[in-house]
Amino acid sequence: MNATKLSGVKALTFDVFGTIADWRTSISSEVTKCARKYGVDIDGVEFADAWRAQYRPSMDKVRDKVLPWRNIDELHLIVLRNLIEQFGLREISETDLHGLNHAWHRLNPWPDVLPGMTRLRQRYTLASLSNGNMALLINMAKLHGIPWDCIFSAELFKCYKPDQQLYKGAVEFLGLSPEEVMMVASHKFDVEAAALIGMRTAFVPRPAESSPQWNVDLNPSATFDVVADSFEQLADVMGA
Amino acid sequence: MNATKLSGVKALTFDVFGTIADWRTSISSEVTKCARKYGVDIDGVEFADAWRAQYRPSMDKVRDKVLPWRNIDELHLIVLRNLIEQFGLREISETDLHGLNHAWHRLNPWPDVLPGMTRLRQRYTLASLSNGNMALLINMAKLHGIPWDCIFSAELFKCYKPDQQLYKGAVEFLGLSPEEVMMVASHKFDVEAAALIGMRTAFVPRPAESSPQWNVDLNPSATFDVVADSFEQLADVMGA
Repeated sequence: MNATKLSGVKALTFDVFGTIADWRTSISSEVTKCARKYGVDIDGVEFADAWRAQYRPSMDKVRDKVLPWRNIDELHLIVLRNLIEQFGLREISETDLHGLNHAWHRLNPWPDVLPGMTRLRQRYTLASLSNGNMALLINMAKLHGIPWDCIFSAELFKCYKPDQQLYKGAVEFLGLSPEEVMMVASHKFDVEAAALIGMRTAFVPRPAESSPQWNVDLNPSATFDVVADSFEQLADVMGA
Repeated sequence: MNATKLSGVKALTFDVFGTIADWRTSISSEVTKCARKYGVDIDGVEFADAWRAQYRPSMDKVRDKVLPWRNIDELHLIVLRNLIEQFGLREISETDLHGLNHAWHRLNPWPDVLPGMTRLRQRYTLASLSNGNMALLINMAKLHGIPWDCIFSAELFKCYKPDQQLYKGAVEFLGLSPEEVMMVASHKFDVEAAALIGMRTAFVPRPAESSPQWNVDLNPSATFDVVADSFEQLADVMGA
């Protein structure tokens, strides 16, 4: 870590799925509950991992213009309609289907998130920088009290990370220069994309996110400015 | 007031300059302080009103494509460069000029704003919907603890109110329908533009904003859903 490189940081932007939110536990629990209502025996974790596995391929379709712009709620729903066939939940009502799709608006944060962010917010501007849509991010924040100063989403830019337009756009909206903004993420591609435009970088690996179905590379690159095990450790390093 | 029309409201969007922020007192105080530093005798209120008087004509230039897109910081600066000539403050340093331009990032809220919003936020999603740029709105909120769930700015849409694209865009980002979102403003044109796309409306006149140089029509239209003297009265009406 290079203290001089960190002293100019004024704002932190955060990835959400995985970095802030423990999506597997949240989604599997809602899936299990919903399946039980319909008398279907589903492995919630398997379902959650299958849903998440279609996340990047869905965005790739938008990126490759196979699909016109669709926000994450819409992409999640397309995948979910396939999964209910595959997992034998095709009896689900439209209302429950949409309710289940909105489970992504209710994801629980990891235990260190709120204490770490509360400290960081005293000293820095905190903004999301997520592929999740605005309503999803707003609803999750409101439910769990995530202390954002500002919510940035791929939906504002109509393109998905790691498109550089998102990182550049967030920095511009903050009225700062790239070296004054630090990207915080648990996925290397995200941290690396931010570094490419000159942002500062913090890697917070989340080993509990990784699974055989959704394998996450947890080894930091030597080029990352900060590597922290938790948001509380990040707050320590950032003097907050 | 029609209780049925109000019962479906889930989010409130707020105008900022005038409705939330007392720009005249804030700006005149910073102008006076800055002028004193340069030994110039300036009537701060006159300067503030002259600055504000160029606000709409500046945006009109963007609207009419006389200027390409410029955010409010940039438009404020163009006007300020003329005013320092006009008011004899041309000795001001570039640093102090930019500092003074950022006085708009530090506007004080009216006294009823924080108590009213704190109550409203328990029940509703609260978002700005302002012609101010993102950094301005973020900085003002952070300085004064304005409890936004989300910040929407003309800068996100690259057009200024009352362009319908802003109101429609905010409703869409909230994931709601127009009748689930209430526009709160102290200027009739703003409330009326929101009503045109089917949003609910609250008019909160701010008599102290009106002056001979910046005349504000304080008489509500019969069509507004709510008329309130303060954000606290608005919270009463909205059951928050």
